[in-house]
Amino acid sequence: MKPEIGQTATIEKMLDKQTVEGFASISEDYNPIHLDENFAKTTQFERPIVHGMLASSLISGLLASKVPGAGSIYLGQSLKFLRPIFVGETVTAKVEVISVREDKPIAVISTQVLNANGEVAVDGEATVMYSV
Amino acid sequence: MKPEIGQTATIEKMLDKQTVEGFASISEDYNPIHLDENFAKTTQFERPIVHGMLASSLISGLLASKVPGAGSIYLGQSLKFLRPIFVGETVTAKVEVISVREDKPIAVISTQVLNANGEVAVDGEATVMYSV
Repeated sequence: MKPEIGQTATIEKMLDKQTVEGFASISEDYNPIHLDENFAKTTQFERPIVHGMLASSLISGLLASKVPGAGSIYLGQSLKFLRPIFVGETVTAKVEVISVREDKPIAVISTQVLNANGEVAVDGEATVMYSV
Repeated sequence: MKPEIGQTATIEKMLDKQTVEGFASISEDYNPIHLDENFAKTTQFERPIVHGMLASSLISGLLASKVPGAGSIYLGQSLKFLRPIFVGETVTAKVEVISVREDKPIAVISTQVLNANGEVAVDGEATVMYSV
């Protein structure tokens, strides 16, 4: 459906240890900073952190299910990983339509993942072809 | 470790139905184009396709495990989804160091996911702070 500028959608999810382990297996990313509490203690983060790409994957679901919704084709995504998200934290992914092209069914959508304090942990933009 | 310009690393993985279902559950992206063979037949792709962000997640693992390797911190990623990847396809993710900053331990790394025919399905760039 043609999205409207300013249209938003959100999803909340608790990113627990099991989800992080599942993502490690899918992505083959077994970095101990995500999986090993003792190792994480030796880093600047002090606790295990969620894979940046795992948190970002929630954006994909929002685009496909809510805005622009069914039939959307994902053309591109930029991501800036600004803050750590700790394992066990409940995050909110948020999308907001920034612009819609006149010549083609393509929208640019601002995409953010907020940490439990509401701070932007992942910031970026998606480009999506919507179903007409 | 300080990466060198031109340094590369690759990983191959078969992205089967079980992996796609696991990613759907993690990302809350249950778009039927990834999961439902009968629905996929009605689309331009004709067969279920892998989530673009699932294929891209292999890049995260490569950066963390190989180049620049342990201790890397992911600062950013751009992704262009150029071609579909079909469920059951074996893909190759590839990273190549493009530039290394002189003032800070930050590298820009070209990132690609190739389909089973060796064509670029996902193209992009990562920005990574490496461990010194």
